[in-house]
Amino acid sequence: MFSRALTRQVSVRFIRCNSSLPEGSTELPICVRDLVQDAPAIGQSIKINGWVKSSRVSKNVAFVDLVDGTTDQDVKCVIRPPSLLPKDVSTGAGVQIAGVWSQGKGKQSHEIQVTSDPGSAVKVLGSVEELYPLQKRNHTSQFLRTIPEYRWRVPEAGATLRLGSRLESALTSFFDTNSFYKTHPPMVTSSDCEGAGELFRVESASKLSSKEQFFGKEAYLTVSTQLHLEVLSAALGRVWTLSPCFRAEESDTNRHLSEFWMLEAEISFVETVDQLTRFSEAMLRHVGQRLLQHGESGLPEIAKARWEMLAHGKYTQITYTEAIDLVQRNSELFTTVPQWGSGLGSEHEKWLAGEHFKGPVFVVDYPVEEKPFYMKKNTDGKTVACYDLLIPDIGELIGGSVREHDLQKLELEMAARKMDAGPLTWYLNLRKNGSVPHGGFGLGFERLLQYLSGADNIRDTIPFPRAANQCTC
Amino acid sequence: MFSRALTRQVSVRFIRCNSSLPEGSTELPICVRDLVQDAPAIGQSIKINGWVKSSRVSKNVAFVDLVDGTTDQDVKCVIRPPSLLPKDVSTGAGVQIAGVWSQGKGKQSHEIQVTSDPGSAVKVLGSVEELYPLQKRNHTSQFLRTIPEYRWRVPEAGATLRLGSRLESALTSFFDTNSFYKTHPPMVTSSDCEGAGELFRVESASKLSSKEQFFGKEAYLTVSTQLHLEVLSAALGRVWTLSPCFRAEESDTNRHLSEFWMLEAEISFVETVDQLTRFSEAMLRHVGQRLLQHGESGLPEIAKARWEMLAHGKYTQITYTEAIDLVQRNSELFTTVPQWGSGLGSEHEKWLAGEHFKGPVFVVDYPVEEKPFYMKKNTDGKTVACYDLLIPDIGELIGGSVREHDLQKLELEMAARKMDAGPLTWYLNLRKNGSVPHGGFGLGFERLLQYLSGADNIRDTIPFPRAANQCTC
Repeated sequence: MFSRALTRQVSVRFIRCNSSLPEGSTELPICVRDLVQDAPAIGQSIKINGWVKSSRVSKNVAFVDLVDGTTDQDVKCVIRPPSLLPKDVSTGAGVQIAGVWSQGKGKQSHEIQVTSDPGSAVKVLGSVEELYPLQKRNHTSQFLRTIPEYRWRVPEAGATLRLGSRLESALTSFFDTNSFYKTHPPMVTSSDCEGAGELFRVESASKLSSKEQFFGKEAYLTVSTQLHLEVLSAALGRVWTLSPCFRAEESDTNRHLSEFWMLEAEISFVETVDQLTRFSEAMLRHVGQRLLQHGESGLPEIAKARWEMLAHGKYTQITYTEAIDLVQRNSELFTTVPQWGSGLGSEHEKWLAGEHFKGPVFVVDYPVEEKPFYMKKNTDGKTVACYDLLIPDIGELIGGSVREHDLQKLELEMAARKMDAGPLTWYLNLRKNGSVPHGGFGLGFERLLQYLSGADNIRDTIPFPRAANQCTC
Repeated sequence: MFSRALTRQVSVRFIRCNSSLPEGSTELPICVRDLVQDAPAIGQSIKINGWVKSSRVSKNVAFVDLVDGTTDQDVKCVIRPPSLLPKDVSTGAGVQIAGVWSQGKGKQSHEIQVTSDPGSAVKVLGSVEELYPLQKRNHTSQFLRTIPEYRWRVPEAGATLRLGSRLESALTSFFDTNSFYKTHPPMVTSSDCEGAGELFRVESASKLSSKEQFFGKEAYLTVSTQLHLEVLSAALGRVWTLSPCFRAEESDTNRHLSEFWMLEAEISFVETVDQLTRFSEAMLRHVGQRLLQHGESGLPEIAKARWEMLAHGKYTQITYTEAIDLVQRNSELFTTVPQWGSGLGSEHEKWLAGEHFKGPVFVVDYPVEEKPFYMKKNTDGKTVACYDLLIPDIGELIGGSVREHDLQKLELEMAARKMDAGPLTWYLNLRKNGSVPHGGFGLGFERLLQYLSGADNIRDTIPFPRAANQCTC
């Protein structure tokens, strides 16, 4: 009792019960998107923060176009007299502008009028150096990649990241609607899913020079979360994830990263590839429709045409055998022509989707030897129940399959491939108890964003791209 | 022309234009959640897949309760004659049941009647072994952690993961509504954000024995994405992420993981800690309210009381100085009693939130020496504009601060701490051009899920927990 009485003497800054704020609202300062989406009443006092997109000064008036990153749109500020504009307000400067919300002239619907009245002001929060590269316009993507701390301030770059966020929200709502649960499979793993990818090894920095191992064994960064997702789909029915994957490949192309985000889904009670291709199609149509409704402006023209194609365009499905046949019949178009049994190259994939079918193409039923051990064999014994989705300009976007859920068949296939079943005992156990038909797929998130945003290079779709010899910041 | 004519001869499995499916719908088989959320008409034929939760056979009838992971609810199946039930249908078996949707008796609103009519059937997809551990009920969490491939099939475990997915969706909608963009900061980095955490080193497995380095320098797994998020908030205004973080700490507690997911947010034009604590409160109230509307059943009683507390309970804010004072005045309750200037221990944090204030407590304005270099100093010169959010039973859930956005002050602080500014040139550059006040915070996703689900141990909130000597699967 003694101590309780004492504690009452200590002051408490505040206690709030059942906040009177409406659900989800906060007390953050107003942002440009607020002004654009829900314009205040004419005559209302406004204080808005942002960065100067452009400014110009004439004899009687100064103009500032203000952005704050929350939308690609800007807010026009009209400053009279122009002497109210501080001298160090150049492009890129951080400012706070107070004025009155007013009817704009001509095309521009609204503007903030800054006058010499009390309450009106332009305050500089952070100026820019004379050599600030973004004061000039029209830099190449190559140059922008050399200034990773600044490049996302460029309007088109910012629009790409905003589009990525909208894409992720659209995917979240699609999976929520379809009774999927989002899960967090491990990044550090002791098993190599595909048996093929180049791996990154992980070890505690302080144990590198000793013989101890932090995890008690060799540990790697995941190349695919599929095997772990199969554990989770056997519990939750339908699961998905969007998480980082890592491949230590040195290929230097405009479509590869060493660290990328992969959407993977695993679905119980799926028996055929057609169920998976139709599901993938529904997902991409949903994404396209969402972006047509709430996409970003400020992206290359081609972006919107691609949303339209995914939402309302044609989707084609052919077999691998048909794809090889098509490529062979058009052999003069390619530098190499594959025989049945070997993989389709990037040039063939792009031709099939981009030039031949002019839209997304599901290629199903690849040869057993071309694909990993866990895929279910078709009745022909030569092909597996799998698919790749090819899209124009990008090539492979999705890869998926029905999984072999029969223990004996899976063990036979692993033996035929001379695989060590030991580290995969847990995975094989899934086939011992309550094993059911299932399947799933993986989609490269940045590849999809590259397609949807119109970016030429995948390195312009992820904030800090990682590749061989590339880990700045 | 020649090749085009030829290609027409190749058959195409299907071409679908502008699918007639309603937006977002797919052709996946019906799942239990579909039946529960939107019951079919009485008398309709139903084919449903799932796993046997329980079964019992009497003289004239057999009963099977079926689950499929998409909800914690089950579907009752009534089988007459009982001989229609195959012998190997025991708990955990995967089955497909076809019958007629019927009015149930008593409490149970609906059931599937399986009869000897054509179209009715119970088909075993995958049986279970005699020793399948989940045929018995009531295993300890400790035992379940030894069977990572099966444990999520236990109802309460599955409910925890489903809750995690709902939590993530609620957070996504909160940030979307508040004009935030979700971003993907890097996992592999060459800079160590906090300067404190034990790091994991990353190297290509094939380069480990050579002197080459894949990234051209030493690379580590991120311990916090904050510094990179500051780059992005200076471009997009308001950003957040939910991504893996890694700490090679060997502490073996019920609240620590070596690999965990962290929600981090960074907000431009925030000037005070109060703006951040109010924002954090609004976020947690939103989460609580969402779960009260659409949470999971099948969790311990305490879970719902906690959602209620976050949604409608009291939130307290005190200073670090006040917190130290409170602890010192109640010194008889603790094994150690901190002096002003040293940190609050776990016992103090849990007492403040759990026993003293009985709800979430924001502790603000910690001593400079207790916190990282990037936090903005208060005018007293001794404390920084930061906060920790403590919650009952868990302790620290959130840590955040206003960041120092003045270049000179930041450089002075780094010099005082004898930090090498070289690797952080890019970070310091942010203060050279268009620097604005900003702040943010980090929240441990699994700690929040631990609190919301009522799990005793954080290892029961993430599918494949990683810790020292723990990397099974």
